[in-house]
Amino acid sequence: MPEFLTLLTPQEARQKMIEALSSQIMLKVETISTTEALGRVSGKEVRAPHPLPMFNRATVDGYAVRAEDTFGASESLPAYFRVVGEVPMGQETTLILGTMEAALIHTGGMLPPNANAVVMIEQTQRIAENEIEVYRAISAWENTIRLGEEVKEGEIVLPIYKRIRAVEIGGLLALGITQIEVVKKPRVGIVSSGDEVVPPEHSLQIGQVRDVNTYTLSALVRRCGGEPLPYGILPDREEALRKALSELKSGCDMILITAGSSISARDYTARVIQEMGSPGVLVHGLNTRPGKPTIFAVCDGVPIVGLPGNPMSAFVIALHFVRPLLNLLQGLPTEEIKPRIEATLTVNLNSSAGREDWIPVRILQDEQGLRADPVFGKSNMILALSRADGLICIPPAATGLTAGEKVWVEPIEAI
Amino acid sequence: MPEFLTLLTPQEARQKMIEALSSQIMLKVETISTTEALGRVSGKEVRAPHPLPMFNRATVDGYAVRAEDTFGASESLPAYFRVVGEVPMGQETTLILGTMEAALIHTGGMLPPNANAVVMIEQTQRIAENEIEVYRAISAWENTIRLGEEVKEGEIVLPIYKRIRAVEIGGLLALGITQIEVVKKPRVGIVSSGDEVVPPEHSLQIGQVRDVNTYTLSALVRRCGGEPLPYGILPDREEALRKALSELKSGCDMILITAGSSISARDYTARVIQEMGSPGVLVHGLNTRPGKPTIFAVCDGVPIVGLPGNPMSAFVIALHFVRPLLNLLQGLPTEEIKPRIEATLTVNLNSSAGREDWIPVRILQDEQGLRADPVFGKSNMILALSRADGLICIPPAATGLTAGEKVWVEPIEAI
Repeated sequence: MPEFLTLLTPQEARQKMIEALSSQIMLKVETISTTEALGRVSGKEVRAPHPLPMFNRATVDGYAVRAEDTFGASESLPAYFRVVGEVPMGQETTLILGTMEAALIHTGGMLPPNANAVVMIEQTQRIAENEIEVYRAISAWENTIRLGEEVKEGEIVLPIYKRIRAVEIGGLLALGITQIEVVKKPRVGIVSSGDEVVPPEHSLQIGQVRDVNTYTLSALVRRCGGEPLPYGILPDREEALRKALSELKSGCDMILITAGSSISARDYTARVIQEMGSPGVLVHGLNTRPGKPTIFAVCDGVPIVGLPGNPMSAFVIALHFVRPLLNLLQGLPTEEIKPRIEATLTVNLNSSAGREDWIPVRILQDEQGLRADPVFGKSNMILALSRADGLICIPPAATGLTAGEKVWVEPIEAI
Repeated sequence: MPEFLTLLTPQEARQKMIEALSSQIMLKVETISTTEALGRVSGKEVRAPHPLPMFNRATVDGYAVRAEDTFGASESLPAYFRVVGEVPMGQETTLILGTMEAALIHTGGMLPPNANAVVMIEQTQRIAENEIEVYRAISAWENTIRLGEEVKEGEIVLPIYKRIRAVEIGGLLALGITQIEVVKKPRVGIVSSGDEVVPPEHSLQIGQVRDVNTYTLSALVRRCGGEPLPYGILPDREEALRKALSELKSGCDMILITAGSSISARDYTARVIQEMGSPGVLVHGLNTRPGKPTIFAVCDGVPIVGLPGNPMSAFVIALHFVRPLLNLLQGLPTEEIKPRIEATLTVNLNSSAGREDWIPVRILQDEQGLRADPVFGKSNMILALSRADGLICIPPAATGLTAGEKVWVEPIEAI
């Protein structure tokens, strides 16, 4: 058995891949419409072409005034203002306020050039056609947002290599930036292999299983910002794998193979990957469950990952190892701060020291709060994973977890 | 001021909407390809058309045996087996094992009909062409997965009204289910209004702002499983709003309006919504920051939400109120267990008792762990939100949070 001679910890394996890959990545960018950029990664720093707001703006409904004119005003001793006009929405105003003069203004309206505050309408009372009482003294610039206060001209509004969310799209559009440079989606070739594997639409003959990995991995790649390129199902033949990898290597930024599960297939998979370029296979065997037979390679700048054939194992490994690599291929940090769910473990779980285990759990909710309940049965089944809400990790240093312990559940999400 | 007479707590407001809506929802379903179902919600319970696996299968590489023949085997006293064949991958095997006979088998291979266990290859040694030593006694069904053990024929593999993740797609395809009934995407009309609002591609005249809400809300609706139908920008005229709502109501499952910010616009918005059907406006004014001027209505079964015009406020309210309603419109529970990030607050924050505040924060990481650092400046700006990683909540019962306190950050996510 040439494999698994030295099982690396997940952290060591990840580090080895990242180091081998980091220096070789050439990020390519393309220009797309800002409204289509959700989930993409910025390929260029963006600076504000003009300040925001472009004028001193009211943030409440009320009366624009010169703040100093409200000095001393109170409930018992209101100040009297003459209303000299109304600021129209969406237009420049040239209204100039005299002493103890006010202009009606709406949220978002432009302050008259010599006004410097807005009295909230709730703090005023109209006492005549053109006269109001003001019940509170306000300070300069109260209830306003000043020219350039949201962003100054030239200020960075989007750094390079940031994942674009709805709020970034909003910020860019507020500045009229309707086109944006983004990193091209990494193209990820996906190969399923195994003599026993048939397409999902096939009836099963005894001994066969349907291809699941092509689709679960495609979904995961898409969710991580990549573009999946499914290659199809290969028989367990060395020559077929060699041909597939050679073809994919020229057009892909990354290749995922779910290895044939026969002993010989596992044997030649690493050998064929090794032929694809330098430095070649970096990791063969991970001290994890699931995922022990995983292969990591970098061949002439293209990362190639040999995943276990078992769909549950392939998916869990892809979550923890393919996702960081896809981040790297988009210019993002490989380490992410992942949101999680805190819950109480329902049962004891055992693990080997030195090995990292991922256990699918359901989250149950009752009066005592959230509980993480491991999914029973043989856990290396895709249907077990579809009954789970998330995964918990038993780290290498631990030999298990105890019922009643607080655990962090990493959710398995759809979108 | 007819509005804000009674400010409801967020929880009361949400409850009122959900109650008014729940009885009126008619979920429509459609059939789509399973591979396209990521993020959709199942519209029908799915049961397994056949068991999985369809045969007793090896989960390791090794030798299929009758477990009882290994009885007493150990390192010092191995059992001797004759190897009578090899199970071909992907095919039925009819090989019958005699006493002390074994068949070479690969992970995923079918057990011979009278075999009931697999000895791992690592626990054997080939000593002659057709003879092996076995160093361990194994129990019945060890290293196998039995017919129907992953799922039995007729067992539920996907409940009705469940969000479909990559793992559900995998489970369905493993069973050959390539088409699936899903709930139709709720169609969500989106209306921006305000005389000062212009499309993002326009140059700004003094006094104008660009439309942001159409795009941030579209992104959010899409992420929550809905189909955004942007209607465009309305002037601050009652008749324009009446026409827009009447047109949208017949083709939408939900309508979002970002209200014009003039006092009169706020006034007639509620009145026009009220005309659209019964029961009409249920909530006018929320005790939240941001989001106070929010309107909730249900008109002849169609929820209509009047959001603040400020893009940051509109987005935060949509996250907390539109998302649960979209869940309801897809048959999902309105309450979700949200994954979050635990961090330490960097500064004191004040709030009014009774009001719920959402504060944008950046997450900083250093030796002491994760810290939640409020984004400075006027926080009701979309660019402030784009500088934040997430939101923290000051609940109605609290009058603030203290520096050093543990807080839960709700991430603002892209995909």
